Amino acid sequence: MRMADRQIAFSGSPLDRADNLRADPAALAGMMNWKARLLLLDGLMPSIGDDGRIAWGTLADAAPDAELVFLGLDRSEGGEKPCFAAVPGRGDASPRMANPQLWSLMANMEPGDLALYGGARSITDWHARHRFCAQCGEPTQIAKGGWQRDCPREEGGCGAQHFPRTDPVTIMLVEHASESGGRLMLGRGKGWPEGRFSALAGFVEPGETIEEAVQREVFEESGIRVHDVSYIASQPWPFPSQLMIGCHSHALNDDLVIDETEMAEINFYSREDVTAALAGTGPFIAPPPHAIAHQLLKWWIEK
Amino acid sequence: MRMADRQIAFSGSPLDRADNLRADPAALAGMMNWKARLLLLDGLMPSIGDDGRIAWGTLADAAPDAELVFLGLDRSEGGEKPCFAAVPGRGDASPRMANPQLWSLMANMEPGDLALYGGARSITDWHARHRFCAQCGEPTQIAKGGWQRDCPREEGGCGAQHFPRTDPVTIMLVEHASESGGRLMLGRGKGWPEGRFSALAGFVEPGETIEEAVQREVFEESGIRVHDVSYIASQPWPFPSQLMIGCHSHALNDDLVIDETEMAEINFYSREDVTAALAGTGPFIAPPPHAIAHQLLKWWIEK
Repeated sequence: MRMADRQIAFSGSPLDRADNLRADPAALAGMMNWKARLLLLDGLMPSIGDDGRIAWGTLADAAPDAELVFLGLDRSEGGEKPCFAAVPGRGDASPRMANPQLWSLMANMEPGDLALYGGARSITDWHARHRFCAQCGEPTQIAKGGWQRDCPREEGGCGAQHFPRTDPVTIMLVEHASESGGRLMLGRGKGWPEGRFSALAGFVEPGETIEEAVQREVFEESGIRVHDVSYIASQPWPFPSQLMIGCHSHALNDDLVIDETEMAEINFYSREDVTAALAGTGPFIAPPPHAIAHQLLKWWIEK
Repeated sequence: MRMADRQIAFSGSPLDRADNLRADPAALAGMMNWKARLLLLDGLMPSIGDDGRIAWGTLADAAPDAELVFLGLDRSEGGEKPCFAAVPGRGDASPRMANPQLWSLMANMEPGDLALYGGARSITDWHARHRFCAQCGEPTQIAKGGWQRDCPREEGGCGAQHFPRTDPVTIMLVEHASESGGRLMLGRGKGWPEGRFSALAGFVEPGETIEEAVQREVFEESGIRVHDVSYIASQPWPFPSQLMIGCHSHALNDDLVIDETEMAEINFYSREDVTAALAGTGPFIAPPPHAIAHQLLKWWIEK
């Protein structure tokens, strides 16, 4: 089964990004009319309507001085509705999975709503945390329908252009072959709840390929050398804006040297263990369905 | 043949990033001794020694107030030499492929030197262009051996932490099946030299998977819908700091609707055309060997 055929949470946005319109100020201005929809956010939190769907208002619901991001065109109801989101006053300084209210809202969202909210959250949060020029320190201005910020020379800036961030992160299954079949290496990060295990993960750094990042991260955290790294699937993760790149790899041995600054525990689990964990009856607590690690574990037991 | 087995330019750095040392100020300070090596850069340009290798000096060659980035440990000569690079006064405002002197130097570099230079260039350029806090506009300070910048509260900053950027870019082969075998869709960007064609490419945006980014970019630039997107190989690209994600996909048809704001021409080429182009005798000028597009074309004619 191809992973691309599975539903990856936060993917599958129904909007057409219509990025050709971003560079067309007249077209952008023309879309900011009574037909335009504004994604209703409370800061960065979604608003849910009585029908259980994410709630939309009109541009009149935005503050008069709000910066607006053009999310794309919604053609789901036949017409072509321009969709916007307003940049909140402040971003999320610690965008962890530790917001129970948000997770309970997201658990009930339709996949398309979840993808749309996730993408809108990433980009509005980026604006809220990037109001100044990193090159010269002057205030910047929103540009290109919210897909750029400019440091204006005419107001004493340096003229630099800034673009939204998407940070690639590798997340990897590490399989060790044994006589009784392959076992999967999973870790519990420092500070995670007792029993919660997932795939190791880490940011891709300047100067390395995806495969090199996988090999480096696994070795750093576990002391294990891996080979035959292969790509499985990817996921946009909106806390704040990662591109999760899911891979599989083979361990040369199982001699763990755990990096205790990052990891609390690392264990190897059999196919039966992982199957049971995904069913909620296993020797460890599996990552939640929204996380690509959950889908990678499913892929592994089915392959 | 697995693409991972090919030599991808800018990959294969011989340094151990030793990232556990970055968070250890005492260890970092201890490495800044007479054994430490400083990558000699002229701004962002490499220096080449009489032996044709990239040139190294000692920390005494850095300006007294230079910010130093810890690149990693070099164990190639048996010992364990800490390697650093100094942040230049200014970054590269237009990091295009338009610097003939740099390209002629890089053409003669050993693969390991090229990878090391590329990674060092990306991170020192990032520091040079990110000396201020994007959240509050105050000056930031280098931290964690150069893998972070902090906005210090004690000096009036907001306490934000900033990390080097790596921007994921999809670059994709688009194949259209025909009775005489598959043909590849390649494009000439606006402003490119006459006859130069390459794979289409574009940044992955917040809120989309790699596969969604491929489908969106191809449709935007060519009007072609693609399916069955598969990952082939990746490359770190240091102008300024992209992660090139090479993919293959299948076109549903060949009815081009060219985005004339981005592309000058798009054509379909046969296996014979691409083979001839890679040999320098084709109907188009192929991308240079340093570019992952070149390796993707080679992969395609050999598969």
